[in-house]
Amino acid sequence: MSEPRANSAPDGPEPIVLSATVMGLGMHLGAWRFRDGDAFDYLRLSYFEEIARLAESGLLHLLFLADTLALSEENLERPNLGAHDPAIVLAALASVTEHLGLVATTSTTFNEPFNVARRFASLDHLSGGRAGWNVVTTFVPDVAANFGSSALPRHDDRYVRAEEFIDVVMELWSSWQPGAQIGDKASGVFADRDKVVAADHHGEHFDVAGPLTVPGGPQGRPIIFQAGASESGRQLAARTADVVFTVQNTLDGAVAFRQDIHERVRSFGRSPSAIKVLPGLVPVIGRTREEAERRKLELDAFGVESELRKLALRVGVPVEALQLDEPVPVDLIKANTAFNASHGFRDAVVRLAETEGLTVREVLYRNGGGHLQVVGTAGDVADVIEQWQAAGAADGFNLMIDVLPDGLEAVVSDLVPELQRRGLFHTEYESSTLRGSLGLPALDAEDHAGAGAAAR
Amino acid sequence: MSEPRANSAPDGPEPIVLSATVMGLGMHLGAWRFRDGDAFDYLRLSYFEEIARLAESGLLHLLFLADTLALSEENLERPNLGAHDPAIVLAALASVTEHLGLVATTSTTFNEPFNVARRFASLDHLSGGRAGWNVVTTFVPDVAANFGSSALPRHDDRYVRAEEFIDVVMELWSSWQPGAQIGDKASGVFADRDKVVAADHHGEHFDVAGPLTVPGGPQGRPIIFQAGASESGRQLAARTADVVFTVQNTLDGAVAFRQDIHERVRSFGRSPSAIKVLPGLVPVIGRTREEAERRKLELDAFGVESELRKLALRVGVPVEALQLDEPVPVDLIKANTAFNASHGFRDAVVRLAETEGLTVREVLYRNGGGHLQVVGTAGDVADVIEQWQAAGAADGFNLMIDVLPDGLEAVVSDLVPELQRRGLFHTEYESSTLRGSLGLPALDAEDHAGAGAAAR
Repeated sequence: MSEPRANSAPDGPEPIVLSATVMGLGMHLGAWRFRDGDAFDYLRLSYFEEIARLAESGLLHLLFLADTLALSEENLERPNLGAHDPAIVLAALASVTEHLGLVATTSTTFNEPFNVARRFASLDHLSGGRAGWNVVTTFVPDVAANFGSSALPRHDDRYVRAEEFIDVVMELWSSWQPGAQIGDKASGVFADRDKVVAADHHGEHFDVAGPLTVPGGPQGRPIIFQAGASESGRQLAARTADVVFTVQNTLDGAVAFRQDIHERVRSFGRSPSAIKVLPGLVPVIGRTREEAERRKLELDAFGVESELRKLALRVGVPVEALQLDEPVPVDLIKANTAFNASHGFRDAVVRLAETEGLTVREVLYRNGGGHLQVVGTAGDVADVIEQWQAAGAADGFNLMIDVLPDGLEAVVSDLVPELQRRGLFHTEYESSTLRGSLGLPALDAEDHAGAGAAAR
Repeated sequence: MSEPRANSAPDGPEPIVLSATVMGLGMHLGAWRFRDGDAFDYLRLSYFEEIARLAESGLLHLLFLADTLALSEENLERPNLGAHDPAIVLAALASVTEHLGLVATTSTTFNEPFNVARRFASLDHLSGGRAGWNVVTTFVPDVAANFGSSALPRHDDRYVRAEEFIDVVMELWSSWQPGAQIGDKASGVFADRDKVVAADHHGEHFDVAGPLTVPGGPQGRPIIFQAGASESGRQLAARTADVVFTVQNTLDGAVAFRQDIHERVRSFGRSPSAIKVLPGLVPVIGRTREEAERRKLELDAFGVESELRKLALRVGVPVEALQLDEPVPVDLIKANTAFNASHGFRDAVVRLAETEGLTVREVLYRNGGGHLQVVGTAGDVADVIEQWQAAGAADGFNLMIDVLPDGLEAVVSDLVPELQRRGLFHTEYESSTLRGSLGLPALDAEDHAGAGAAAR
């Protein structure tokens, strides 16, 4: 089902996908103190423009923006990882890039499906078919109070709403069927009314009439990204996602996860070739290993208290329970049955700590805000990427850049050429759309939404 | 309170403000058939970029985008007047313009205040302080069914919600007080926690904790636009708006409206210099009057049925009640006490028809989709602008361009130079922010939100 890949050797490895995540001034909480430039650069267009142009010059497939719908206490200690409305930032970047995919996070818990369908359809048109929506259900407790609620809905309830939310969005995105756009100026026939259909959705959470105000864009519909790791998260991803972000710290765990997703994908009548699995990877790159380790230590010196607090939130224990040179308190973490945040982050840390018996400090070093971290040369990072790809652990990686823009400069100038030498990365964009450059199958009449809904 | 205007002669008239509205492929419903280019150009970035660059080359103060949260039957007859999410379009234009104000419509009835506050704050930062929010409550009945409701809330109920919605947004926009941003990389102090305050809003419609994820941008906060003409609409505008769009077809009516707004503004403890009143104006420009009239007739030939249906919707009568060569059925219009749409449009048509005893065809000719229309040379349009400004009827005009981009080209190449010759229009942008170029007073500690809330 895949389109032929222009850049892959006939018998070489399948080229990998690379995504770059923009969070604040970099993934590392000490990034703002480490880097040149102003602490509030993360609010400025020039900052994002530099990153986007850099990513495109390195042929990265897409830029990914996280989102936080609340200013938590910790956001007053360093730049907020998702301060701006991500769709607004990506729209501003649409007019200064040509090939880069533009993927924004938006919560299904605190938005209306009609607004979300329309916003991403607009971004998709204006970018010439490069938009993606990362579907999240929001696990940060502070958010609820910004939307009239005293607490977040329960994890499983959030996913029930998300399932229906995506269905509605998909229905709206296919309001204008092929052939609906006539535009005959001479006769005055603008649209074929019979081919513009109402969604007419009536469900548990939503009643939405439709049709959407805009037809589908150059890639049919925006690309769906997801990162849920829980049972309900994996089911949602397998049924609806084109790309899955995942937190994986061990090769075996990553292989098992990708196999699990492929099995679930098949159970919904979809082909595994229709979904890309991208583990997060924090590369801390130096020209030598010593330089990379120095970079990591300098960064940690700027942010270890913040990293500790973030880890405590991620695993659901009080920060006092985490002592830098003591083992990670795995039993205490597992004992918290009221845990309501991201299962993916928590489970990855538990697995890493249990498998290798690590201290808190070692986990922080190995693990960049929850994600796999490689401290070394571009060659070292390429080794991990090659190993994981060969083992069937990944279709590519979501690079969580430690410090922006200079960590991304290292990716573009050192890592990308190294991967190209190994035949692991494309040497030009294969398509002007994100769907095309990801190598995802073309949408046909029986699209994901339809097939998934039927199999559900 | 106004900043000195660099371009105004010391004893000349106060320079006027010009806004350009982008709706579909032009304000006239026949525009898509009249113009060169594809009928679906209104979906493309290149179309908006051309318009934005043109508007900026003519020193227009701002570009204004309307919004429709539903695809109505009539939108299948010609390009939708607000197909795309307007904030997404304007964000895409932020990176290709430098001075042009970017004003998007967003409904208070079908959004959450936290999301709206954040979206416009993001647009304000990324544009360097050029964002504006046109607050509407939505009067198109079809919209409700896209948001789980069988009918729109009643007119007055929508305005009660809007009042509180704006208060919440203003509170969120002032979450980060002056001095909150520290960003001291050496000491690691990022923000002054005491100066980042929660909104802690608890009202009839909303409970919102805050603070907002981003501080205020280069102009303090986005500029507030409003167009409500009903009693509750005028009160809302007087208390909270910086700019008022209005539908005025007669000079006397416009003078009375502006005086009424000024009185209400004073009653809230604000200065009339803090608010700009901009009537809508549809210029149909030719190099000669004959050319302009030919243009208008050709346009009408392409769209008279659509214009009729739109007029019927605007005044709340069945389309069959409107006969082109019969008088406007004023009594029938007034008899519809269940009218739930825009009072501004309806009242303007009634006033025009009553005052001058016009037929439906004459109203359509004089009145572009409800607005004052001048068919003639750039000099004729400038005469009306000069007369209205001198009479105290307007601080400027919201130009509803008949056909895009060529109607805007005529504005830039002919109307703007004519207004400049008469000393009525600036010859350079006075400021890099929209607030500055509109000549609005600088925000002080006791801003509109605070003052308005106290006086309410």
